[in-house]
Amino acid sequence: MAVRQPQQDRSRATRQRLLESAIEALAELGWAGSTVAVVAERAGVSRGAAQHHFPTREDLFAAAVGFVGDARRLWTREHSIDLPTGPERTRAVVDLIVRLYTGPLFRAALHMWVAATSDPQLRESVVTLEAHLGRETHKLALELLGADESTPGVREIVQATLDMARGLGLANLLTDDSKRRAGIIDRWAEILDTALRTGVKA
Amino acid sequence: MAVRQPQQDRSRATRQRLLESAIEALAELGWAGSTVAVVAERAGVSRGAAQHHFPTREDLFAAAVGFVGDARRLWTREHSIDLPTGPERTRAVVDLIVRLYTGPLFRAALHMWVAATSDPQLRESVVTLEAHLGRETHKLALELLGADESTPGVREIVQATLDMARGLGLANLLTDDSKRRAGIIDRWAEILDTALRTGVKA
Repeated sequence: MAVRQPQQDRSRATRQRLLESAIEALAELGWAGSTVAVVAERAGVSRGAAQHHFPTREDLFAAAVGFVGDARRLWTREHSIDLPTGPERTRAVVDLIVRLYTGPLFRAALHMWVAATSDPQLRESVVTLEAHLGRETHKLALELLGADESTPGVREIVQATLDMARGLGLANLLTDDSKRRAGIIDRWAEILDTALRTGVKA
Repeated sequence: MAVRQPQQDRSRATRQRLLESAIEALAELGWAGSTVAVVAERAGVSRGAAQHHFPTREDLFAAAVGFVGDARRLWTREHSIDLPTGPERTRAVVDLIVRLYTGPLFRAALHMWVAATSDPQLRESVVTLEAHLGRETHKLALELLGADESTPGVREIVQATLDMARGLGLANLLTDDSKRRAGIIDRWAEILDTALRTGVKA
């Protein structure tokens, strides 16, 4: 039986705010600028309260890694509902996948990946989460595309779609790449559609 | 008339060594770890001599950005010579492009891109070089594939190939992704080959 516990609610809300601020700080300021003090200030939380939730910066960002995963899942679920059926669907699915890799959550994740190359503890959290998220995103893409992985070549083209989306996310890091991107998504959707409809050999 | 000037040669060799060490340091230690002192030590050059060539860290890495461009160009030219002709060619070209984005030069470039998100001076050098390199790599891919950009859809599928390669580079950052990657390259080469041979609509 769930009884409301205001104190616990407040504590959970503070934790949530800290994690949101950690992701925003990462996406905007990068790793070096995202200290616990900066994150606490952005969250409107005292430094002491922040340290109560996350004693070290490593604790904060290990939790933030998981939070990015949850946020991505939620975002994808929400946006999957409105996808059209019929001939427009493949393009809409490719577009959704690309948006998953070009938004602020990807930007934050990218800063974490790069920081993780020289931080063993962060690396472990990031690699574990990425393997998990990668499988999830792949499964979701198959489902949204109505694609059958037992058909030879389907697994690889769906993987290639996710890798292409990741590359587009990187291309969007320093400049607005949206115009070029739209043409690539159109073309990719055509090719993917043909490859999935005709089965093997593109 | 070129007269040999040992002093200038030594100076050029020192500069070259510093730039090589800067890229290696970036690829291995990331941005935060790649200070002028660290780079000088790796190059076997005194800190004073390093500062004579590059008064600030910004000067060193602005020059390193250009050096990455030159090194990529040289690497690609060298590796383009051995590409097979005939039915194996498309796969070999895709593989070459992907290797361009999965090696240490890409890794160093990635650290620079991410550092550039919060460093306006570095950002300017990186964005200028990237626009230039992007065009160059695109042109080279067209040439190696024997593809004609005036055919509708060819430009976009070649761009998509480079974006996919960039995404594969990112997927290789924290873990060895070479096995998964090989299957994707096989499949993409099939699709690309069909799309280029049959012209429009994949």
